[in-house]
Amino acid sequence: MKPKYVAINGQLISEAEAKIHISDLSIQRGYGIFDFLKTINGKPIFIEDHFNRFFNSAKSLHLELAYDRTSLLEKVNELIQANDILNSGIKFTLTGGFSEDGYQMGKPNLLITQTPFEISKNNVDNGIKLVTYNHQRQLATVKTIDYLQAIRLQPYIKESGADDVLYHYNGNLRECPRANFFIVKGNEVLTPQTDILKGITRSKVLQLAGHNFTISERELTLDDLATATEAFITSSTKNILPVLAIDGKPIGNGNTGKVTYQLHNQLNEVIQLALAGHQSVPG
Amino acid sequence: MKPKYVAINGQLISEAEAKIHISDLSIQRGYGIFDFLKTINGKPIFIEDHFNRFFNSAKSLHLELAYDRTSLLEKVNELIQANDILNSGIKFTLTGGFSEDGYQMGKPNLLITQTPFEISKNNVDNGIKLVTYNHQRQLATVKTIDYLQAIRLQPYIKESGADDVLYHYNGNLRECPRANFFIVKGNEVLTPQTDILKGITRSKVLQLAGHNFTISERELTLDDLATATEAFITSSTKNILPVLAIDGKPIGNGNTGKVTYQLHNQLNEVIQLALAGHQSVPG
Repeated sequence: MKPKYVAINGQLISEAEAKIHISDLSIQRGYGIFDFLKTINGKPIFIEDHFNRFFNSAKSLHLELAYDRTSLLEKVNELIQANDILNSGIKFTLTGGFSEDGYQMGKPNLLITQTPFEISKNNVDNGIKLVTYNHQRQLATVKTIDYLQAIRLQPYIKESGADDVLYHYNGNLRECPRANFFIVKGNEVLTPQTDILKGITRSKVLQLAGHNFTISERELTLDDLATATEAFITSSTKNILPVLAIDGKPIGNGNTGKVTYQLHNQLNEVIQLALAGHQSVPG
Repeated sequence: MKPKYVAINGQLISEAEAKIHISDLSIQRGYGIFDFLKTINGKPIFIEDHFNRFFNSAKSLHLELAYDRTSLLEKVNELIQANDILNSGIKFTLTGGFSEDGYQMGKPNLLITQTPFEISKNNVDNGIKLVTYNHQRQLATVKTIDYLQAIRLQPYIKESGADDVLYHYNGNLRECPRANFFIVKGNEVLTPQTDILKGITRSKVLQLAGHNFTISERELTLDDLATATEAFITSSTKNILPVLAIDGKPIGNGNTGKVTYQLHNQLNEVIQLALAGHQSVPG
């Protein structure tokens, strides 16, 4: 099911008519940033964190946003109401704008889209398989629209019998294209620290893990996979999703582990708390 | 002056109406390839070479093109006639297509655009200044739409008093975002060999240089700049353009050198020959 509306530069537009001129720098030069969050029962989850990152990404790419946080939240809420979709993913994209010569930056275009989202589809029992690939994302700490390698690798992932790719750079573990990566070793929860996009869910999970486990943000290598007792990925869409095998080799005993279950349940509680509480938008 | 028409998936469309739906993977994920060539007196220059590269780029990114070379040439000629612009740049872009979920590839969209081009504006006497930056382009040998670093660095280039950026990777020279880089040392013409986009003009210049000079395609470093007697960049738009200073330091005596002049004149002769001859399109 497609949503009825999208918002382009603050105007609600019929989804079928949601077009932009091809002189936009996203089309001409792959130039843009975005962020993505969930709504549950019509309420955006962790929107402050996502706004913080979105505004930082825009700044990193010299993209001036014509909205402050309050007016951006208004636009998001307008779209949620117009579409009447309660559980959804909301993506806001800021492009390099229409460029006269296809190279110099224009005035950025803001696209807000909404996609229906089935909350039930994340089943923590059914994990995924990853295949590794040597790649360091450029401007890794900024949430850009650059997924050139990720899309190009889709056939490779399929041929490998995997569900997604795990990037490493010369053996040092990094991230999945749309998720952060964690391993567990006994009572220790470990995740790569540098040259990655630091996800909102990643930071929530690190906070939670700190209560009951030793957490370690550090350089991890391909060799660490052999001694991992569990592995999982985190993202706003997937929450916590167990990784049961990498490059055809099982992680631990090949089933969802108890640390993963525990963190998964705790994360759900935090999301429920966020739903119950009032979400203010920082000035 | 804007051209009247562009071609989207083979259809001539008024330039003002040249829009695509925002579900296209170029907008969603920066996914696409392109090529760019000049027309002089309505005639495309080195179109066989550009088509070869365009089809190779498409293949590298698993993008299926609905046209063969002959029908693509027809579309290019249709556009040239409709716009009635004789001297121009023609850009053909192939995107990842409209994506249902904003991630899986769709059927690629082909955009052909034309921009008026002043042939006289390339003056070999007036060179440019470069500033260096540590960056290795991803999928460097494929002509993708990824110019994330190049656009992001525009303010940096300006603040540095430079006209463009020269990428090096940990000291090893690479290329400019839209041009290849050469240096001259006495009777030797040198250019980086690996992890770059090998330009059509680059290959023509190497052929020409081989007649009168020693040519060397090899790893070059930032240290080589200090002992270069001349430097220049090559591109389809710029032909040969002298580089007179890099990072604020003059190259050689800081003026356009005699090897650069000679290659510039020889390249112009080759372009005139291409114009005079019939250009066939390989099957």
